[in-house]
Amino acid sequence: MALIVQKFGGTSVGNIERIHHVAERVAREVRAGNRVIAVVSAMAGITDELVGYVREVSTLEDVEAYADHDMVVSAGEMVTAGLLALRLRSIGILARAWAGWQVPVVTDGMYGRARVEEIKTEQVNKSLDAGRVAVITGFQGVTEDGRITTLGRGGSDTSAVALAAAFKAERCDIYTDVDGVYTADPRIVTRARKLERVTFEEMLEMASLGAKILQTRSVEMAMNHNVTLQVLTSFEDKPGTLLVREDEIMEKHQVTGITYSRGEARITLVDVADKPGVSAAIFGPLAEAGINVDMIVQNVTPDGKMTDVTFTVPRADLDHALRAIEGAKTAIGYQGLHMDGNVAKLSVIGVGMRSHAGVAQKMFKTLAEKNINIIVISTSEIKISVLIEEQYIELALRTLHTAYGLDAVVEKG
Amino acid sequence: MALIVQKFGGTSVGNIERIHHVAERVAREVRAGNRVIAVVSAMAGITDELVGYVREVSTLEDVEAYADHDMVVSAGEMVTAGLLALRLRSIGILARAWAGWQVPVVTDGMYGRARVEEIKTEQVNKSLDAGRVAVITGFQGVTEDGRITTLGRGGSDTSAVALAAAFKAERCDIYTDVDGVYTADPRIVTRARKLERVTFEEMLEMASLGAKILQTRSVEMAMNHNVTLQVLTSFEDKPGTLLVREDEIMEKHQVTGITYSRGEARITLVDVADKPGVSAAIFGPLAEAGINVDMIVQNVTPDGKMTDVTFTVPRADLDHALRAIEGAKTAIGYQGLHMDGNVAKLSVIGVGMRSHAGVAQKMFKTLAEKNINIIVISTSEIKISVLIEEQYIELALRTLHTAYGLDAVVEKG
Repeated sequence: MALIVQKFGGTSVGNIERIHHVAERVAREVRAGNRVIAVVSAMAGITDELVGYVREVSTLEDVEAYADHDMVVSAGEMVTAGLLALRLRSIGILARAWAGWQVPVVTDGMYGRARVEEIKTEQVNKSLDAGRVAVITGFQGVTEDGRITTLGRGGSDTSAVALAAAFKAERCDIYTDVDGVYTADPRIVTRARKLERVTFEEMLEMASLGAKILQTRSVEMAMNHNVTLQVLTSFEDKPGTLLVREDEIMEKHQVTGITYSRGEARITLVDVADKPGVSAAIFGPLAEAGINVDMIVQNVTPDGKMTDVTFTVPRADLDHALRAIEGAKTAIGYQGLHMDGNVAKLSVIGVGMRSHAGVAQKMFKTLAEKNINIIVISTSEIKISVLIEEQYIELALRTLHTAYGLDAVVEKG
Repeated sequence: MALIVQKFGGTSVGNIERIHHVAERVAREVRAGNRVIAVVSAMAGITDELVGYVREVSTLEDVEAYADHDMVVSAGEMVTAGLLALRLRSIGILARAWAGWQVPVVTDGMYGRARVEEIKTEQVNKSLDAGRVAVITGFQGVTEDGRITTLGRGGSDTSAVALAAAFKAERCDIYTDVDGVYTADPRIVTRARKLERVTFEEMLEMASLGAKILQTRSVEMAMNHNVTLQVLTSFEDKPGTLLVREDEIMEKHQVTGITYSRGEARITLVDVADKPGVSAAIFGPLAEAGINVDMIVQNVTPDGKMTDVTFTVPRADLDHALRAIEGAKTAIGYQGLHMDGNVAKLSVIGVGMRSHAGVAQKMFKTLAEKNINIIVISTSEIKISVLIEEQYIELALRTLHTAYGLDAVVEKG
């Protein structure tokens, strides 16, 4: 008998009717002859409500404050786990609810963002052997000395993957409110296709670029422990997207997906002295100000003495960043400063780039044909990102989607 | 340093503002040099909400269903405990939150109405020794094999008393939404006085007669373990009522308090054969129907062959009771049946009755002077109850309150 881990997020268990529905999903796996571990989040909105209470009683930020925070917010999943186990039994499926500390899911003591250290499988395995579904609270664990911890926002995905690894599950199904990973945002690109498979590496690039489906940590953990992940919706009955190792994908397309990020701002420092330590002089003050710098490009000038440095920051942080840079003007020693608050980032992603030449060239040519100016280029092994004016983002997305052969054959709608 | 247990009920921690207020109460005990264990209920309304969810997902009534129920509803106190500990630290008082399973409060496996078997004091004592307030979830415990249990509605009082006994607390303060135990219901008797002290035995008679301030089980437990209980309000700053042993009350009044219960109904069976087994024939069918019979009076007739039997049931169960009795008419063999759906019970209570003669006589005489007819009389060692027409209940209460010298010297209002 195969063991399947099924993880249900907050909207999937958002009310009693949804919990009934989720119980049917679990029952179907059981009736198909599988053993099941169901991992549940708090009902949608509950965690936010509890965090709100915590903020109302205290502004402390010390370790003990996070420990209390974890005790408070861990209550949310306890409710869902108990209710789902109860519902399962009331439709004839043996089940038992487990809090993280009962399994136990042992974590370090970094309250609020703990890391799973060990999952003790003996008790739950006994219960599974007795034919019971194990309904386990996501998002939470317990320290060696018995205090409740949480894994941080979105931590239920990590719980599910860690449990799948520890129990050697055949598959870890992450039920969410989207039905899989698409070649591009279907709200913009109507001919976007759902991917049957995507590699972990591609998923990591997509997640960090704004296709917020899975918590990055859970993807990394699945990759490291060789857990087969599936992303699918609990709201409809159809297959999702499988996350797999690169060698499990037969035919590699040049490009698997195209993502975008609006709300970027560009800053260019002109005629910066090209000498050691100048990067630190620029980016040190920004880091201290807590500003997340994304793309960085530096061009060498012909005489090798001066250089221009361009970088991007979130648009909301632009004023803040400018103040930090101007405050460090003497240390940096730049001659001029340009900026642009109306840019967006576009990235094409695909492990196939490694074996296909000309992926970048096709991107540049396609954008040029539409008269879209590329402001900055940045590349990694499986990704090419460009900065363009934000007004062109939708046109660029659709045009590139067609150019890379990603369009669905049958038009939607 | 004395150890004080402070228990805060649902209305006392009903919102964030109330939790702030409760933290100040705890802080005051700490600043007075005491060690404190604070026992908390769920915020008012939360437990009902969680129980509502449980009912929506399942109608199962088996042991496992109650186990899930307990996991779900135990979430409520976790939230309050975490928030109160956090609040305490943010006003400079060291504190740690403890779930029942962390203490641990070990119970039997009767989910939904578990009994405390043992409280392991080592961990909490270490924390108290380190100068920390222990904020402990009321209402819940854990079985020997690590599953969450709850003690039943009102179980937080029991938790508090059990903790006070296990940790040998000097006093167990139960904060609630009434400010103490009164000689009579102050809404009816404006001259009712708050009692400084009341004996456990009196409190038990009052609780079971409708003065619903403390859970009966917690009073019994306090009596058995010699815990000094105090009932007081968290909404105002004034002393409450101490529950003590009889030998701790110096001057015993004839009567300590007068309670009443509306909504009673009387049934009289006329000319029942006075032979062995007839009581079983009457009350067996009522017990089977789940009807709670209260007062029972049987008079011997002069010839010793026939008797009249009168008993009371809750008015809401009257029709139900009549059907049960009529269904058993042949077995009982009564000749006539009278009933009255408009009666109420009045009880005078006091350990002083043991040493004062004439308490009953004063009651009968006082009621007779007001032309209030006594329908049924029932007595115990420290209580005399009478059944009267409900329309006279307020008059009777006030008149008896004056007759027994219970009126406050300074008139209220």
